[in-house]
Amino acid sequence: MRNLLLTLRYDGSRYHGWQIQPNGDTVQQRMTDAFYKLSGKKENIIGCSRTDSKVHADMFCCNVRTQCAVSCEKIPDALNFYLPGDISVYDCREVPESFHARYDCRGKEYIYLIYNGKYRNPFYENRALFYPYFIDERMLNAEAAAFAGKYDLSAFCSSGSEVKDRVREIYASSVERSGDLVRFKVSGSGFLYNTVRIMAGTLLEIQQGKIEKGTISRIIESKNRLAAGATADGCGLYLSRVFY
Amino acid sequence: MRNLLLTLRYDGSRYHGWQIQPNGDTVQQRMTDAFYKLSGKKENIIGCSRTDSKVHADMFCCNVRTQCAVSCEKIPDALNFYLPGDISVYDCREVPESFHARYDCRGKEYIYLIYNGKYRNPFYENRALFYPYFIDERMLNAEAAAFAGKYDLSAFCSSGSEVKDRVREIYASSVERSGDLVRFKVSGSGFLYNTVRIMAGTLLEIQQGKIEKGTISRIIESKNRLAAGATADGCGLYLSRVFY
Repeated sequence: MRNLLLTLRYDGSRYHGWQIQPNGDTVQQRMTDAFYKLSGKKENIIGCSRTDSKVHADMFCCNVRTQCAVSCEKIPDALNFYLPGDISVYDCREVPESFHARYDCRGKEYIYLIYNGKYRNPFYENRALFYPYFIDERMLNAEAAAFAGKYDLSAFCSSGSEVKDRVREIYASSVERSGDLVRFKVSGSGFLYNTVRIMAGTLLEIQQGKIEKGTISRIIESKNRLAAGATADGCGLYLSRVFY
Repeated sequence: MRNLLLTLRYDGSRYHGWQIQPNGDTVQQRMTDAFYKLSGKKENIIGCSRTDSKVHADMFCCNVRTQCAVSCEKIPDALNFYLPGDISVYDCREVPESFHARYDCRGKEYIYLIYNGKYRNPFYENRALFYPYFIDERMLNAEAAAFAGKYDLSAFCSSGSEVKDRVREIYASSVERSGDLVRFKVSGSGFLYNTVRIMAGTLLEIQQGKIEKGTISRIIESKNRLAAGATADGCGLYLSRVFY
């Protein structure tokens, strides 16, 4: 039995996230179907995370235990042949049989992308939040630094999550501009449901004056979801790195 | 009567080019429909060029003579409200009544975009030619310089074109890489049918050794379409600047 670690990139616009569900097309479903065509067996593809509807990935990892004998070198092209054009596998390697893409994940980095031009840009439709108002990226970068640290993420977790231990470590958090694109980048040991989208929404509300500057630490301490900003749209979110 | 010069950007993936045609969705049709909703009259929208099916524009200009009284400042947002998300108007200004977007155009710049990664990238699907083989961009840049000059473009014009005067001036031509993206950029006084796509195809065939290095000048002199390379796919082509 081989255990394969696959790395892929996908445009999530058309998908209801990673995880297979009865109604709606998902990336895991497409990967399962493609792997079935390759190996002739219905394998369980284990993802590193459940991304939401419309969320993208520049790097997403999954593992699959299989008898399939195709060489690692050939697997990406073979799977891409069966996958739709908005999903692309770009790496495949063998890992120990005990390796689990989710449990062994030591951290992730996300980027929340904002298109900050005056008029919408067709090339960022569904691929960035369109926000045509003033953004002071230096001010937001200074604010975003307060997200770093090890703490209970309850204020940045959508209600409905039943996770008990909500303490995670946020390694780094920054905001930078390149032309009309503003990127909020955050890495950490783990994230709860909607965490990055709520952090992005909080930064936008600080920009808008709805949330006071310098209060992110207080919001963290409150552990109160209502103290943070609204959940920013999924279309701007990219899983950008996965650490093992 | 006002004459308005509109500047737009579009993702051409879903369109059969700019020009209205009986079968197939076009950008001109969408612009005409949006302008009708704005002004209540069916106006003739005059484009700077006819782009092909699947071809994109970062900058496309068109003019419309109209009685519509909406201020220039408000027109982009008003049109974008009626346009689909893959077309976006980002500038509107009044020009003299005699101004014609096509006849008064003094030159254009195109970019042919190649995604040169080993595996396809979902974020460039339909937005770049996927070419996973070796490209020596420095060599191609040196070759591309030979496109500059004033000459008869017959070797770089698809058969079927009935244009008689085929002399145009190519101002500049270059190839550069940024990561996995290779850009062939060319500007000139005007272009014939498929010119930039044939130039791009010629460069790729030089890379492949199908066309000998150092022979672009000879291909130009031959005025023979068969001496040049195949027409590269429309999905990689962007109209990037229009000069007046």
